[in-house]
Amino acid sequence: MTELTPFFTPLGIAIVGASANPGKLGYGVARNLVNSGYSGAIHFVSHRAGNLFGRPVYPDLASLPDPVDLAVLIVPASGMAAALQACAGRDIHAAIIMSSGFREAGQEGAALEAEIVAIARQNGIRIIGPNCIGLLDTHLPLDTTFLPPPIPPKGDVAFISQSGAICAAIIDWARGQGFGFSRLISLGNQADVNETDMLAAVVEDENTRVLTLYIESVADGRKFIEEASRVTRRKPVVALKVGRFEAGQKAAASHTGALAGSDTAYEAAFRKAGIFRATTSEEMFDWASALASCPLPAGRDIAVLTNAGGPGVIAADALETNGLHLAKLSASTRQRLTELLPPAAGLNNPVDMLASASPADYAACLRLLLDDETVDGVLVILPPPPMYPAESVAGAVIPLIQSSRKPVLVALMGETLIQEAAERFRRARVPEYRFPERAAAAMAVLAERQEFLTTETTRHPENFNKNPAASVVNSSADELVAAYGIPTAPARLAQSASAAVQAAAELGFPLVMKIASPDILHKSDVGGVRLDIHSEQEIYLAYTEMMTRVTTAAPQAKIEGVLLQRMVPGGQEVIVGMARDPQFGPLMMFGSGGVEVEGLKDVAFALGPLDQAEASDMIRRTWAGRKLRGFRSLPPADEAAAADILVKLSHLAFDHPEIAEIEINPLRVLNQGAVAIDVRLK
Amino acid sequence: MTELTPFFTPLGIAIVGASANPGKLGYGVARNLVNSGYSGAIHFVSHRAGNLFGRPVYPDLASLPDPVDLAVLIVPASGMAAALQACAGRDIHAAIIMSSGFREAGQEGAALEAEIVAIARQNGIRIIGPNCIGLLDTHLPLDTTFLPPPIPPKGDVAFISQSGAICAAIIDWARGQGFGFSRLISLGNQADVNETDMLAAVVEDENTRVLTLYIESVADGRKFIEEASRVTRRKPVVALKVGRFEAGQKAAASHTGALAGSDTAYEAAFRKAGIFRATTSEEMFDWASALASCPLPAGRDIAVLTNAGGPGVIAADALETNGLHLAKLSASTRQRLTELLPPAAGLNNPVDMLASASPADYAACLRLLLDDETVDGVLVILPPPPMYPAESVAGAVIPLIQSSRKPVLVALMGETLIQEAAERFRRARVPEYRFPERAAAAMAVLAERQEFLTTETTRHPENFNKNPAASVVNSSADELVAAYGIPTAPARLAQSASAAVQAAAELGFPLVMKIASPDILHKSDVGGVRLDIHSEQEIYLAYTEMMTRVTTAAPQAKIEGVLLQRMVPGGQEVIVGMARDPQFGPLMMFGSGGVEVEGLKDVAFALGPLDQAEASDMIRRTWAGRKLRGFRSLPPADEAAAADILVKLSHLAFDHPEIAEIEINPLRVLNQGAVAIDVRLK
Repeated sequence: MTELTPFFTPLGIAIVGASANPGKLGYGVARNLVNSGYSGAIHFVSHRAGNLFGRPVYPDLASLPDPVDLAVLIVPASGMAAALQACAGRDIHAAIIMSSGFREAGQEGAALEAEIVAIARQNGIRIIGPNCIGLLDTHLPLDTTFLPPPIPPKGDVAFISQSGAICAAIIDWARGQGFGFSRLISLGNQADVNETDMLAAVVEDENTRVLTLYIESVADGRKFIEEASRVTRRKPVVALKVGRFEAGQKAAASHTGALAGSDTAYEAAFRKAGIFRATTSEEMFDWASALASCPLPAGRDIAVLTNAGGPGVIAADALETNGLHLAKLSASTRQRLTELLPPAAGLNNPVDMLASASPADYAACLRLLLDDETVDGVLVILPPPPMYPAESVAGAVIPLIQSSRKPVLVALMGETLIQEAAERFRRARVPEYRFPERAAAAMAVLAERQEFLTTETTRHPENFNKNPAASVVNSSADELVAAYGIPTAPARLAQSASAAVQAAAELGFPLVMKIASPDILHKSDVGGVRLDIHSEQEIYLAYTEMMTRVTTAAPQAKIEGVLLQRMVPGGQEVIVGMARDPQFGPLMMFGSGGVEVEGLKDVAFALGPLDQAEASDMIRRTWAGRKLRGFRSLPPADEAAAADILVKLSHLAFDHPEIAEIEINPLRVLNQGAVAIDVRLK
Repeated sequence: MTELTPFFTPLGIAIVGASANPGKLGYGVARNLVNSGYSGAIHFVSHRAGNLFGRPVYPDLASLPDPVDLAVLIVPASGMAAALQACAGRDIHAAIIMSSGFREAGQEGAALEAEIVAIARQNGIRIIGPNCIGLLDTHLPLDTTFLPPPIPPKGDVAFISQSGAICAAIIDWARGQGFGFSRLISLGNQADVNETDMLAAVVEDENTRVLTLYIESVADGRKFIEEASRVTRRKPVVALKVGRFEAGQKAAASHTGALAGSDTAYEAAFRKAGIFRATTSEEMFDWASALASCPLPAGRDIAVLTNAGGPGVIAADALETNGLHLAKLSASTRQRLTELLPPAAGLNNPVDMLASASPADYAACLRLLLDDETVDGVLVILPPPPMYPAESVAGAVIPLIQSSRKPVLVALMGETLIQEAAERFRRARVPEYRFPERAAAAMAVLAERQEFLTTETTRHPENFNKNPAASVVNSSADELVAAYGIPTAPARLAQSASAAVQAAAELGFPLVMKIASPDILHKSDVGGVRLDIHSEQEIYLAYTEMMTRVTTAAPQAKIEGVLLQRMVPGGQEVIVGMARDPQFGPLMMFGSGGVEVEGLKDVAFALGPLDQAEASDMIRRTWAGRKLRGFRSLPPADEAAAADILVKLSHLAFDHPEIAEIEINPLRVLNQGAVAIDVRLK
């Protein structure tokens, strides 16, 4: 029993603003609630007395009989404060506010919204909305929306939406598809209850097997990740995040900052929380139906069973596109297929039974494939068979699919000839897709879910110790990263050529000389970097030349001298960086370094703090990272050290929220260990 | 009038193998042809005499009355030769062979297929099939398939398919969608008529506005490109090419060869021919409907009109994803929208009229957007409006869309509540999509079509002069490319250190020394490259060291000496290469060079021969190419020279079919001109 319980299992509901006028929202809500079959008490409140759907209409909340613990408020925005006060008076602590005219309507509305939130807080009332279309639960049942009836079919997918219009369209679309929902919640303006609260609440619903989420933003990035990480361990979450493209450019001080957009941060947040990110609404529900009803595949080797070559090839392509593989069938399976099928049949995967395939052939071959240890899951391709009704095939394979511990998805191709088959599959909870491509994508999601569930458990920000010793205020960038155990190349600042020679004596040759200036971001661009200095004489020459070139190229820059650094020979150069996302915190980057980072875009992102496994995963997602294992004549470099530095840098970023961007470019990854050559801080 | 004319406008059709048994294909074909409304003569031939659908059944082709110029043959494979001979005897020169049991059924069938092709050639008979499901034309009308009735609705999209099963599934799916076709052709085994012949024939059909194509391969790559290039100038072609993933690895002698797969070649072929490549069947028909009925947008600036924020954001995202942009509405449009809409409405693009938007609002705003010069096209987003039936909105906007010279696509969201609206849009030939994402992708295709039609005309292999002077047999790789006007760095072979010093005197310093060995592909990997040699003494040292290192690293390699080359200073290094595709010929590559070509994958492909515009397009598709215009401290390099060398190399490849792979890595692109530093040939 939480504060949100009355939203989902209310004992009694008051509809404030119920109306007998079919043109009013208050009519639709009353009608839907009465028709929904809701078994608790239903009360209508309106300033117009009378009867509605055979029930009395009360003049105010105060006069309602018990029980009542949820109010649906459909009154003008200007009257909402009073309505909430009345809820408090009647001991109601949950309100769905459907009315608009709040934050979405401009400044005046925003003030009204702030006012009702204040009243709710004072009185311990939780609010869904305002400006929402309510919620429904097909199992309880309960329907507080005003959408045209009927209520969508029962199902096991919950849909939580920040857009009411999407909610309405999805309900209607789902009805046409025979796609069922457990709960639908329209969050509206999220003045109080937000998407994160709702995830936590809905995962508790025993009728919900999969949560789907339409979001445009999250209220609090870190809380969202923490809560969603807990939820995804229990039930899968599929999200459609829109608003991918940001308008305008931001000023970034580093390559990491330039590449780290808000959408990159969402992508990383979903990855960290184990949320599947769909790119279209269709994908979201394609994946949700598979996740809701299929066992998970043990691996990525999939068999394709078809009665026609073309769709089989499409399916094979789509499996590869989605990172799955065609299972290599065992010799005994192939042998038994030979015995079953005509000579011209395709016996390798895809198994093409030819157009003459009967329902019994489908069943026999499917059984063989499911029994084959090399097969982790099966795509059944079913274009209308020329000689048999598609529904007979459905009838023959459904019992096998239902009793299988491996997932089977069906590409049921066509439309009018496969309606009856589609019905049968739906009733049997076998996911069916109009095209093989969509079935293959859903299968890949099942494989990812299995991999997610078998990896190590959640990674929490709390899982590491803070390092209070290191203070950014009093440290140079090099000192700061060194305080976190990130090796840096020994360096000395020199303000004259002779001081540079002095420093060289301490550091030893070979050396690198770099211009030291807070105003010069890209040193090599202005002649401010000189590699491979081997003698005192070269130091003199390099110093003079560098001062000339830099002051010519950047006459207004403040020059603090030159930095001399022992040159680290060999190894591979990569970039490691962090840009702080306003929503999600430290967004870590790894990839091909140098100056062409934005051009090559060979980078991967993940949200900090990282653990070693997350860091290794980032590394392997880039070419620069894969190359660390050695490439042609390039010897292998210490991948683990690079991962370790990513982890440490993520901790540093977490400890120091005042740092907006930090970047090591290059990090030289050696045969043993790695060294930060140039560290930049903002 | 061509040889294929009788397939599409036959004067009389003979169905050989017509049957009164509903379980037989010969029954289905007879039934469909009679029911199709075909107005020419219909004749049935069967060894069982009698009546069928009220018409006499003749014992053989010889006894048929006139007119008859097309035979549909449904007889066993073993009797097909005789059936074709009978066609010849009756002066029939077009046959659709539906029977299977030919090439697809194994060796014996392949022999039968060869036999019937030989008979057809001898007698001037053209064949569609065997192993196909026939063809249909909804306008003539004509239906020679055996698919369950009814014939699909009339439309203006033709579908040509190498898979009969796909054809059948698509017909059924289209029927459910209310999607119409002009013609459907199942090509079967393509023993004679293939996809290229069919493209050329169907483009002539006045009822066809768009051609769609399902292919697994093409019969002759170059002919396909030539024919398709002509077709796409007249009508758009959308293709779904499957079989994207090749099994097994091939041995490649160059980076180009390693990266140039068969799917890359198809991708390049479609680009060259101006064919749109869909990745799913749904996409193919989404795009085809827009191409069939919409005017083309003058540019890529699109307005979004919606009654809800969420779907508007989805649409805006999808536009950007597809390379389109949100139009920046003019001040006067914004002003007039302000006057029309409530204060809380979104007046920038997307224009969010809010949920209260009436059909009249939709129409008024759409008119404003279409009249705005900044707008090239409009996406209308229509989730079921809460207060009005969706069909009223359809009724209000259809006249505007029909009279507009700008394209308008509709995202009609939902299912049951929008059925009537969907019907209205279909009848009005306004493309409507269930999700904004699909509408945005279709809009992008319209923009591409416009750009394609306004670019320079076709590029034919014949458009350049061969260069017979250059013979690969007697040339080194350097000499060969030099013969095509590609500058190479002067080089000399030396077989001893002193000969190297001698060569240096002719070439001048600085020099590069490379090992000369036919057995060593990757010279730098074995210590076989030494840069920046400035003196005679360095030559001696480098020679000795190189011989030691190379013979240690590659003891079995035949060493011919060292190659000395004048070092070309400065510039940017890129890779330019060609790998010959067995289907399409020279597949050209451009991109980031060095040894990490396959890792970075910063490469673009196009089919040769190239013209300057195609070469420039390839260059701009890569980071290496975009960087040629200058990047930070890197000065601009001669992009036109790089393009010129791509063009010349493509001509070389075209002239010399005996060359399998050729690669210049690096090509150094200088401030003026470009020089091939290392040329490799296979």
